[in-house]
Amino acid sequence: MLRIRRAHPEDSAAIWSILEPVIRAGETYALDRAMPRTAALAYWVGGDKETFVAEGEDGALLGTYYLRANQSGGGSHVANCGYMTASTATGRGIARAMCNHSLDRARQRGFRAMQFNFVVSSNTRAVALWQSCGFAIVGRLPLAFAHPTLGMGDALVMHQAL
Amino acid sequence: MLRIRRAHPEDSAAIWSILEPVIRAGETYALDRAMPRTAALAYWVGGDKETFVAEGEDGALLGTYYLRANQSGGGSHVANCGYMTASTATGRGIARAMCNHSLDRARQRGFRAMQFNFVVSSNTRAVALWQSCGFAIVGRLPLAFAHPTLGMGDALVMHQAL
Repeated sequence: MLRIRRAHPEDSAAIWSILEPVIRAGETYALDRAMPRTAALAYWVGGDKETFVAEGEDGALLGTYYLRANQSGGGSHVANCGYMTASTATGRGIARAMCNHSLDRARQRGFRAMQFNFVVSSNTRAVALWQSCGFAIVGRLPLAFAHPTLGMGDALVMHQAL
Repeated sequence: MLRIRRAHPEDSAAIWSILEPVIRAGETYALDRAMPRTAALAYWVGGDKETFVAEGEDGALLGTYYLRANQSGGGSHVANCGYMTASTATGRGIARAMCNHSLDRARQRGFRAMQFNFVVSSNTRAVALWQSCGFAIVGRLPLAFAHPTLGMGDALVMHQAL
């Protein structure tokens, strides 16, 4: 049982406990690995974003995602999301549940498509998951990501119409 | 004769006179067409950007561009730029001069590639210009841009290694 709901200010500590290991690892997000808590929370729960959390049966937060318009003006009909799963909760379908939730929410808000700007190609589980959720690879950014152990690799742009 | 130099605070009015018609037209940038001056200048001359101006012989500003890292962390070796030419100065090679200047500057700063995230495909002059400057199309974002008169069209991701 997973309950996905809007994030509240009281969730900050739990959200940070999900974000911190992902940011520090630097393997999947193009974010400064030394990013401090305040900046990370401002980035994830910023004013232009709608932020959600995935709560387990015991109330523990197992994942979080944000939804925003990917561009302004003539590009504001395309949504963008970022997802992170708690390191203790991987492999349990939480990212998939959050992705499906975000697609519904984006449709509800009237977005016409969803785009991921920077999917690290070595993150093969994520690439396969997004494909199984209906996303297609529409761009390949050559050697766009410096992975801490794998070195330079491509990043992908993924997209689906809503 | 064109002199390209760093923008100074005193250039704000002249930069805004270049930005305003481009933003209000809404044909080439995914920005809110009603974006106010303060927000537009904060966007163009923001803290994460190095902003340049192209000055004609008489000191008038004929164009402006910014250079920044396109991503943080593992993506910070890729540069990103935005260019605008004064509406009175199009067709005089100013965008090309700014692009070449930005490529040199990006190399000088140690960037390994340059990426444009959102080139409106109906802006065929820009697409051809970037291609002639060495950029390749590495992604196509389907119907990502709502042009005010042409309707929905694709946007392109363009890239070149440095």
